[in-house]
Amino acid sequence: MRRNIKCTVEYDGTNYFGFQKQKDLPTIQGVIESTLSSFLNTEVVIDFAGRTDRGVHAFGQVINFLVETEIPPKNFKEILNKRLPPDIRIRKVENEHLRFSSRFDAKKKIYFYVVNTGKDFPDPFMGRYSMWFPYSINRERLEENIKLFIGKHNFSAFTKKEVRETMSTVREIYSTSVRRKGRFYYLFFEGKSFLRHQVRRMVGALLKIERENLDKEILIEALNSKKHPLGEEKIPPNGLFLYKVFY
Amino acid sequence: MRRNIKCTVEYDGTNYFGFQKQKDLPTIQGVIESTLSSFLNTEVVIDFAGRTDRGVHAFGQVINFLVETEIPPKNFKEILNKRLPPDIRIRKVENEHLRFSSRFDAKKKIYFYVVNTGKDFPDPFMGRYSMWFPYSINRERLEENIKLFIGKHNFSAFTKKEVRETMSTVREIYSTSVRRKGRFYYLFFEGKSFLRHQVRRMVGALLKIERENLDKEILIEALNSKKHPLGEEKIPPNGLFLYKVFY
Repeated sequence: MRRNIKCTVEYDGTNYFGFQKQKDLPTIQGVIESTLSSFLNTEVVIDFAGRTDRGVHAFGQVINFLVETEIPPKNFKEILNKRLPPDIRIRKVENEHLRFSSRFDAKKKIYFYVVNTGKDFPDPFMGRYSMWFPYSINRERLEENIKLFIGKHNFSAFTKKEVRETMSTVREIYSTSVRRKGRFYYLFFEGKSFLRHQVRRMVGALLKIERENLDKEILIEALNSKKHPLGEEKIPPNGLFLYKVFY
Repeated sequence: MRRNIKCTVEYDGTNYFGFQKQKDLPTIQGVIESTLSSFLNTEVVIDFAGRTDRGVHAFGQVINFLVETEIPPKNFKEILNKRLPPDIRIRKVENEHLRFSSRFDAKKKIYFYVVNTGKDFPDPFMGRYSMWFPYSINRERLEENIKLFIGKHNFSAFTKKEVRETMSTVREIYSTSVRRKGRFYYLFFEGKSFLRHQVRRMVGALLKIERENLDKEILIEALNSKKHPLGEEKIPPNGLFLYKVFY
């Protein structure tokens, strides 16, 4: 029986060259496809909600694939988790109608970025999952600034040159939020789709404002420019998580 | 000026073949010694409070080493953390008198073991730092059983054959405790010194009793035997942490 199987996937991206398959490099897609192909004994190609870059993690990446099998979802989950490495976990397996696409049917995505504001060197455990930013954060200003991203904007200044030159850079952010737990800040962004590096560059801009005590006008200016130095702040991938995809 | 420097070290042991130096294999001691040797431009050999096995982590391992240097402790910490990989962190640097030994002067050590009792496959993040045990735990029984280890016992049944055959296997446990946070149980053991694999085997025995609903008599029996099947339960190293060393 031909079936379309949807899986919610959680991973620690530290040891992978991003989600998307690459020749001769370990990627999440590569590992999942070869695991599926080997136990189903046929080539399986997966579709997925969104690429994540090298070192980026996920709580709720979504994939789907077409297979001829009778294996029920519950057993599928069990079999896959037993065969996958422990840094990739299948959280949920569901049957979908045959035309479902995890990529094209995604209505909304949430990413979050974790910032460690502790003054001392980060510990080796949470250090894998957060960016170290040993400066003060003015939470009121941060909450105000992060809201400036909400709405439809041309995020040209907040992506890579190659993206800027090849496609529309208009995107819509539906909502943002800031949560804090001790020395950790969690910055949430909700939108239909995001440009390459967009979340990291938005967070980079917010943190530059904190570190250098800048005025919010510079952020408004960056949002109105095709290219702006504020959007160039590079921050590490290990603080970024694809949190959830909505259908 | 000749100085004896004491450091408190935190590490994620996942990617190392244990603490102690081994030829051609990455170990915590190897990495710390080569980092120290390279920036002090002389061979440095470190002493340490206790070996940890492959995959075991530490919050508070303690090391010390003799050097001729004027660098103050604060700067030493900064320099080391900048040069060490992020999974090894120096938490504290202190000057000690020249005869101080992190190994021989240790009065007490605390280890803890993390058990994940969640029914679903562990997530890729905490999965690195805990053992998956998807069974029910009777906390009252566990608390009662763990106390049976307190005191001076012959832990012969709770170590490796080679240890059993080459040295005294009498050790003293000063105290134990159980803490719980959601699906995670933390089992603490405090003692002067521990045999190879002792903590893992003690936790293994406690968990076997939970899983198979055994009577506590079997644990008392194991503590009175030179070799006992209850002490043979192998559990993974990644749930074990060297928590603190007292001087």
